[in-house]
Parts: sequence; C-alpha cells; structure tokens
Amino acid sequence: MAKNEIPYKIYLNENEIPKQWYNLRADMKNKPAPLLNPGTLEPMKAEELEAVFCKELVQQELDNETKFFDIPQEIQDFYKMYRPSPTVRAYCLEKALGSPAHIYYKFEGNNTSGSHKLNSAIAQAYYAKKQGLKGVTTETGAGQWGTALSMSCAYLGLDCRVYMVKISYEQKPGRKEVMRTYGANVTPSPSDTTNVGRAILEKFPGTNGSLGCAISEAVEYAVSHEGYRYVLGSVLNQVLLHQSVIGLEAKAALDKYGVKPDIIIGCAGGGSNLGGLIAPFMGEKLRGENDYRIIAVEPASCPSFTRGEYRYDFCDTGAVCPLAKMYTLGSQFIPSPNHAGGLRFHGMSSILSQLYHDGYMEARSVEQSKVFEAAEFFAKTEGLLPAPESSHAIRAAIDEALKCKETGEEKNILFGLTGTGYFDLSAYKSFNDGVMTDSIPTDEDIAASLAKLPKVDK
Amino acid sequence: MAKNEIPYKIYLNENEIPKQWYNLRADMKNKPAPLLNPGTLEPMKAEELEAVFCKELVQQELDNETKFFDIPQEIQDFYKMYRPSPTVRAYCLEKALGSPAHIYYKFEGNNTSGSHKLNSAIAQAYYAKKQGLKGVTTETGAGQWGTALSMSCAYLGLDCRVYMVKISYEQKPGRKEVMRTYGANVTPSPSDTTNVGRAILEKFPGTNGSLGCAISEAVEYAVSHEGYRYVLGSVLNQVLLHQSVIGLEAKAALDKYGVKPDIIIGCAGGGSNLGGLIAPFMGEKLRGENDYRIIAVEPASCPSFTRGEYRYDFCDTGAVCPLAKMYTLGSQFIPSPNHAGGLRFHGMSSILSQLYHDGYMEARSVEQSKVFEAAEFFAKTEGLLPAPESSHAIRAAIDEALKCKETGEEKNILFGLTGTGYFDLSAYKSFNDGVMTDSIPTDEDIAASLAKLPKVDK
Repeated sequence: MAKNEIPYKIYLNENEIPKQWYNLRADMKNKPAPLLNPGTLEPMKAEELEAVFCKELVQQELDNETKFFDIPQEIQDFYKMYRPSPTVRAYCLEKALGSPAHIYYKFEGNNTSGSHKLNSAIAQAYYAKKQGLKGVTTETGAGQWGTALSMSCAYLGLDCRVYMVKISYEQKPGRKEVMRTYGANVTPSPSDTTNVGRAILEKFPGTNGSLGCAISEAVEYAVSHEGYRYVLGSVLNQVLLHQSVIGLEAKAALDKYGVKPDIIIGCAGGGSNLGGLIAPFMGEKLRGENDYRIIAVEPASCPSFTRGEYRYDFCDTGAVCPLAKMYTLGSQFIPSPNHAGGLRFHGMSSILSQLYHDGYMEARSVEQSKVFEAAEFFAKTEGLLPAPESSHAIRAAIDEALKCKETGEEKNILFGLTGTGYFDLSAYKSFNDGVMTDSIPTDEDIAASLAKLPKVDK
Repeated sequence: MAKNEIPYKIYLNENEIPKQWYNLRADMKNKPAPLLNPGTLEPMKAEELEAVFCKELVQQELDNETKFFDIPQEIQDFYKMYRPSPTVRAYCLEKALGSPAHIYYKFEGNNTSGSHKLNSAIAQAYYAKKQGLKGVTTETGAGQWGTALSMSCAYLGLDCRVYMVKISYEQKPGRKEVMRTYGANVTPSPSDTTNVGRAILEKFPGTNGSLGCAISEAVEYAVSHEGYRYVLGSVLNQVLLHQSVIGLEAKAALDKYGVKPDIIIGCAGGGSNLGGLIAPFMGEKLRGENDYRIIAVEPASCPSFTRGEYRYDFCDTGAVCPLAKMYTLGSQFIPSPNHAGGLRFHGMSSILSQLYHDGYMEARSVEQSKVFEAAEFFAKTEGLLPAPESSHAIRAAIDEALKCKETGEEKNILFGLTGTGYFDLSAYKSFNDGVMTDSIPTDEDIAASLAKLPKVDK
C-alpha cells in the first residue's frame, strides 16, 4: 500500500453505487429561474414541456423540492455494467509536479461512450421506454452524447435518431460508426429529413451545420412523429440530477479514507459534469455543514461564466427552444475554433448559473494551447489520454497544485476527468505539430452577440 | 447484489495485484523447444541474444525452471495506475442469449494502449532503463503494442522508436498520434533510416510495408545504435511470463467467489494474451490438480494452430530473427485480409505450441464475419465495443454458451477480452455496410508457403 494507505484507485463496492439521485435544487435557497415560453414569457408548464420531453423527465425538470429521486432498478442494473467508476489518487502526477498537494480525480471515461454522458442517457432512454415510446431523437457535436444515447437505446430496444453536425459527421467517421454499430440512425445535419433542415440547405447549400441547427432538426422530428420525444445531454436540471451519481460516488470514496477536498474542479460546457461532480459537496456548502472551494473551468474561446451576462436567452441558435436564465454569450454567439467540442455551448446550466451568481463557486477560463500542454503532461505521467474537455480541469488542477508547491500547503484537490481523448486525435495532432492556435473573442464580439437577444425583464 | 452475490465486476484490492509473475514453463514436463541460431542451428546462447535484447529479459527468456519471478517495485507501481483489471460477470450477455451458462471475461482494455500489451511493455522498458540504455526499438502493426511501449517509455524517460507498417501508418492516423503524444518517434516502414528499409524501397518503391519488414528495420536500428535494444510484444517466452498477471488476477477473482471455470477461451495471434490468461489454470492442469477445457481461437484467414505445421521457422518474414519451433503457416505466408491485425502472425508462441502439441488445449478457427456478428451482439448487450482480436474469443464463448442452452448445462465460461475497438472502426464500418468478406487460404496456399522453409531436423 502507498503512503496513507490510500490506493491509487478507490473503487466502491457494487452495492455502494448510489440508489438515489441527489437533487441539489432542494438545498438551494435561491432556486434556478424557470424556463420561459418564448411566446408568452410565462414559465413553461408541464403540459407544454411534455410535447417535447418524456413525462417523468418533465417532472424531474420542474421539481425544485424533492431532495432524492430513487434510481429505478433497471437503471441501477445498467449502471453496474460500467460503474462504480474509480476515484483515482494521482500519485504519479503529484510526484512529477513535485507538489505537496494530494490530487484526486473521478474518472468517468471507462465506458464505450468515452464519457460521463452515459449516466443521463440511460436514464432518459429508460423513461422513454417506460412511457411506451418508439424512440428518441437528439443532436450530437463531438459525439459522446450521441454514442451514449445509442448504447442506451440499443440496450433497451428503442429507436435512436441522432442529428450529427455535418462537419463532425465528416471529420469523425469513427464516432459515427460506433453509433451505427449500436443501431442508431445517424443523419448529418442540416438534412432533408426536416423542414428546418431543408430551409437551411436551400439558404446555405454548402453549410457545415451547427449544434443549434441539429437541435432544431431533432426537436422537429420528435414533435412531428408519433411515439418520439427529444432528449438533451446537458444544461437541463434533469441531466444534472442524473449526473449527481458522479459526485455521490466520489464523495463516498473520499469519505472512506477520511479525505475532505479543499478544492473541487470541473470543466464547464453546459454544466452536466461539473454539476454532477459538485452536487453533494455543494449541498453541504449550501447547508453550511462544510466549506469547499469550487472552480468551473471554461475555454477562453467560449467564456460564458467569466465574460457572459446572467440573463434570459434561448438554449439554441435556432431560437425554437424555451428561454433559460443563465450566464450566456448570446445564442447567436459563434465561438472561435476550439477542439473541446463539448465546451462550445454559448450558455450554462441554470442551476450552476444561479450558484455562481450567488457566489458559491468561482470560474476561470483557459486557452487551449495551455490546456493541451496539461493534457500531454497528464497523459505521460498518469498513463491516460484525456479528452480535451476534461483537460481544462486538469490544467486548473495542475495550476492549483503548483501554487501548493510554492506555499508548501498539502491541499486536497479533486477534479473531474470526464472522458478519454481517443476520438480527438486530430486536436492532439495540431498540438503535436505545433500549429495549435488560441483565439479569444473580443469584448465587441460578445457585446454584438448579446445585443441580438430579446430583453426579458425577469 | 445480483444472484449468487457475484457482482457484475469483480475488482481485486490493490494489494492483491500479483507481486510475482508465474513462469508456466517450470511446470511443463516437455519444455518449449529452444530458439536456434539460423546459421549454426544450435540453441541461441545468452550472449547472442543480448546483442538484441536486454540482459535480464534474456535470462527470463531462457529460464525454463524458475517458477516465480518477483515483479520489481517500479513495475508494481506502474501496474497500480491501470490494474487490477476487472473480471466481469456478463449477466446481460447471458440473459440476451438465454443461456444457463455463467459467462465471465477478464477485461484488459481499460488503459490508453487499449489492450493487455501494457503489461509487458512496462516490464521490457523497465529492464532497458535498469540496464542504462538510451532507448528501445520495436515494430507495430495494428498499433496497440507501439502505443503501450510509447506510454511505458514516456513514463520512464526512455527514447522509443517505433517502425509502423506503412499502410497502418497511413490508415490509422489516430494510433500514430497517440504514440507521438507520448513522445515516440514513429517511422513508416519501409523507411530510409535503415539498410534493409532502403533496399526494400529500392526494390519495391510503392510497397505498403509488412510486419516482417518493420521487425527487420527495428532490429537493425537497435543493433547498429549504441544504447538501444529491440523489444517484441508477443510470441516470446518473456512476454508470456509478464502477461501471467492477467490469469493470476482472473483466478484470484474467481477463487474469491468459489467459481471454477469449466472452459477458458482466448484469441490467439502470437499467443501473449492467451498464454497470460491461461497460465495459472494450465499450471494446475499440468500438475494434475484441476482440469480445464482450454480453447485457442484464431482467424480462419491465418490458422496456424488448426492448419499449420509444428516445426522450426523464422519469427519474421525477413528471416533475420532466430528460428523458433512452433505451429506455423510458414514465415513467407501472407494472410488474406483480416481486420484483426493482431492475429495475422504466421506462427505461434513456442510455449503454447508445445502445450497444444501435447494435447493440453484445443484450437478452432472462425471467419471474420461471424466474429463481427458476435462483436456487435456483445457491444449491444454488454455496453462495450470490443477489439476485433478479442471478438474471436467472444464468438467462441457465445457458441459454447449456446451449446449449454441446448444441453441445459450451467457451465462456467471464462474468456479474455484483451481490448477495445476504438481504433478499429473502419472494420466495423465494413461490417455495418454489409461489405465484409471472408477469405480462407487454400491447402495449396499453405503447402506452398511451408515448402519455402528450411528443413531443420529438431
């Protein structure tokens, strides 16, 4: 055994996998602002949401009070195929940094979707199946979410239709092929299978597509076909609820060894992984039981927390979705190129936005060249090739550990390693070739994007 | 807990990771035949082998008597980053098959090399470092071995030169990029960095390269550069020794729950994974303590066990390596196309060849379309996309489980799942597109290949 008898990898037993999801909203004094109907500017009602989403998921979405939701047995059984995931003590990284800090990471990449997305995909697919639906639709950019949903649907025998941003469809044939192997119907977006797709194709024949357009197509297909609903892999309250398994497991693992993290770090795109990782820790902080420093790390190319505004905005570029109150760069914002496809969303989870607004967490943005520097260092010392998204958290964890080296403090740092970089090797190539560039939006870019938004006085 | 209280995944504790490798040869009455010097046809002496391989590895290679070798602490520490690997009860696969069989698999794919290769790569790199060498050279086809060696060298600060078969270099840019990220020098073979490479390029300007040629280049570079040695990822006795950690862990995990496998199945290319998985079980069988049915599964396109001859042959196409006594299709044999690049070796480990010859194990060959059928079924039910190589074992495991369904027998089946298929998606694509073909060598093909070999009367 290593020093302190803390193993390299802390695995919980199978019967310690959480049996309930934890709803952080129940412990928030200031609840996240409700979704608004873009027509009436009134809070979306359950009936309205049920045209798009499954019934039980709508209940989870709207419920700010119930503290714990039982995880259905079928989902628990599926979790057992790839959970519990390890909480890893990064001994080799600590040694390589020469830092007295104790670094831990919760690793969610040991499943074929390559990330934490599977935790919510199986839940959303399960409720669709339970409702007697034929299938679900979704969009995917980088591909982790589409893969996770394909795997879940294959397991449950549901039809799965994925609209994949055209440029990703062409540049990531491997991702597409995994989804096809799981029986999913993968369509490059924009496509001629929907009105919105056809309209865009006519207007911009050579377009590469966008996440906003893919969302619009997936929603249109779902609402216009009997027996289909739309599902989303981040941002929504229900997704953060499902992802609480990450934090619950990480906390249980650290509690076993009496370790209390001083700093908790996660990358932030739509907020699903960060919201999941911090859930039980933030709960203690909100209840005044314990204090933790919590840091969200976002790309400098898409800095919604650090340079966006806290206001109502559309969740999609096409402006077909409800309005959410969140830190946003504006739904018309086009981020400059960044290889962390999972962090290119213009907005942020309403839950995390409220918590950040109320001062319960910090945020920082980092440039991608610094992120890949950290990714390569981590790969070499910890033997694991991280996803570009996760590497934002690695960067911040290394920076905090280096501060400890200066001060001599033995802080406990926990970060979320959401996934692996096996499908991101063109990004690594540009880093290895020394041609990776950083590009940061100007204040004018952001102001112009925000100026296009409707003013909602709520 | 599930029925029988056997969890989905059995993880050993960190202190249960083997601290010694088990040398199966010590328990063999008929020892594997020695490597021969191709010039003198005399057994290779340690001094001769030390020109190519590290000193301590040569000792491991030649030692047929020492039963256990201590695993150096540095290697044990590295193992802790990705081991113990789980022994998985395939509940979902059993259910989907409707078979009373209990199916277990030892999964070695949860590390960035994507396979079991890392177990031996770190050992070989360690001994090179200990000997004070500057670096090591090797060849790689599919890329797992090259990746594993790159990771190990990065960890230890050794130079790593990988000759990658040119066609793989071009078709698998992702694999190449992982190795580059780990700091390896990856050269497409044939290249102009060696005499043998230059000669081949002059003779066949447009060649795609071959594993045989890449081996010759890697060996030439090692013997002609101060401070370098050559390392190999399969076939050799030392590799099977290191890979015994697979079987030792699997057996310890099953022993914990009182499970004795009736059938043990592994895919067989050069023999590294199969030899590692079966080691402790075969040991019991050789000592008469327990009986197990052991099945090697090879591709119908490269059937060395099932259609080859047991005789002395070169380990490489270029005929620069020593002669090994093994089941072989002839070192000039060119296998018909098969996507399981890791199983295209013309020969087989001398240890496994002797055991097969002595009747201690069975072998069967399967066609690749049947293999991918099994791979897809497994991916959908167990949530894990397997490597094409591993899927040969899955095919046989499913076939045995279906026999149990007919007879009603509750047999325990254990198979080795060596790795993941994330870099094999062009193969999955050809299966998904319905254009995958099987091709099996004729008897005449094999006879013609064997006719080219020197007759060695040993």
